[in-house]
Amino acid sequence: MSAVRGRFIAFEGGEGAGKSTQARLLAEALRARGLTVVTTREPGGTPGAEAIRKLLLNPPGDTGWTAEAEALLFAAARADHVAHLIRPALARGEWVVCDRYVDSSRAYQGAAGELGDEAVLALHAFGSGGLRPDRVILLEGDEAALVGRLAARGAETDAIEGRPAAYHRAVAAAFRAFAEADSSGFARIDGMGAPDEVHHRIMAALGDLLEGVGT
Amino acid sequence: MSAVRGRFIAFEGGEGAGKSTQARLLAEALRARGLTVVTTREPGGTPGAEAIRKLLLNPPGDTGWTAEAEALLFAAARADHVAHLIRPALARGEWVVCDRYVDSSRAYQGAAGELGDEAVLALHAFGSGGLRPDRVILLEGDEAALVGRLAARGAETDAIEGRPAAYHRAVAAAFRAFAEADSSGFARIDGMGAPDEVHHRIMAALGDLLEGVGT
Repeated sequence: MSAVRGRFIAFEGGEGAGKSTQARLLAEALRARGLTVVTTREPGGTPGAEAIRKLLLNPPGDTGWTAEAEALLFAAARADHVAHLIRPALARGEWVVCDRYVDSSRAYQGAAGELGDEAVLALHAFGSGGLRPDRVILLEGDEAALVGRLAARGAETDAIEGRPAAYHRAVAAAFRAFAEADSSGFARIDGMGAPDEVHHRIMAALGDLLEGVGT
Repeated sequence: MSAVRGRFIAFEGGEGAGKSTQARLLAEALRARGLTVVTTREPGGTPGAEAIRKLLLNPPGDTGWTAEAEALLFAAARADHVAHLIRPALARGEWVVCDRYVDSSRAYQGAAGELGDEAVLALHAFGSGGLRPDRVILLEGDEAALVGRLAARGAETDAIEGRPAAYHRAVAAAFRAFAEADSSGFARIDGMGAPDEVHHRIMAALGDLLEGVGT
């Protein structure tokens, strides 16, 4: 059992902001330092949460989920993910790099979806003991460019990606507000430019957590 | 559009108490009076909720759901069921007869599962606006006989039915306590004896709601 405490890093941001690419590059860099890294995503990450993900992205029947049912499903998926993957990995001293976490629920369902931040945080406290990442990497970008990347995915958009532009603008504004309210918990990163450049900005923003770690 | 307001009747009780049989007999009797009746069940009743039911009864992977994830999934299924089936039917003036509802979550997850009544009621308030039945029919029986009926189902028991006897005793005690705390909302019905006898007890317990209805 390692004496080094594991760290939990979450990537957040709108669709097309480069979260998946940057999560992969971060995991590679951490492994190069000799760390054991678990990469995962939300909704999903465990068999139970991945099954819930399918229901969220492709609602059965023709009614769609109500906003409340959607928030409950996200909280259920997260509860499973936290209990069966994230907490055990951290307890073993591993690093966890996660593509989206509770701040996505706060931004999408709480702010843009109008359920309110308090309700989303109450579900997270109940389901997952309110577990927070050690650092949230918020990838921000030129909105017009992000819409372009999203449009390039074309018909691949799902039930959430396909929502109107005003919804996505509200999401971006909510992420900014969360980061402003918790400047030590969040790192706002300029996500525009070559993936390698963005990666270097992220490594710099994690400097304090990486001090004395690995090589 | 009917001027008569629809009524919402829920059946509750332990496994093997005869809920499904009595729900069917009640629906037949109400239809014989000229009422339009929707029979449904929980978890389930809508395409979304039935998909969640499958996840609840057969958890993916080998970890099972945490108690919290399970409660969130039940609340999500109920939110879909209430929004897309129960409320619309009541608004059309129809009667809804449901096999299990929120008091099952209170008894199983809240009391026997030790999450607490307050947490379960908070999820119900969030997901379904706290909608209560007009009357809960609580089917009670000789515990030894119920265990016998359950055993006769053999290998058909699912993830919840297969829990130990102490869990099922705690469920029965919780249902009794809910009924004692809300004597106008609940009717405690002796579920032992021939199905027709039990059915007559139920019709008597609904006398006030049926006054001037139908024939």
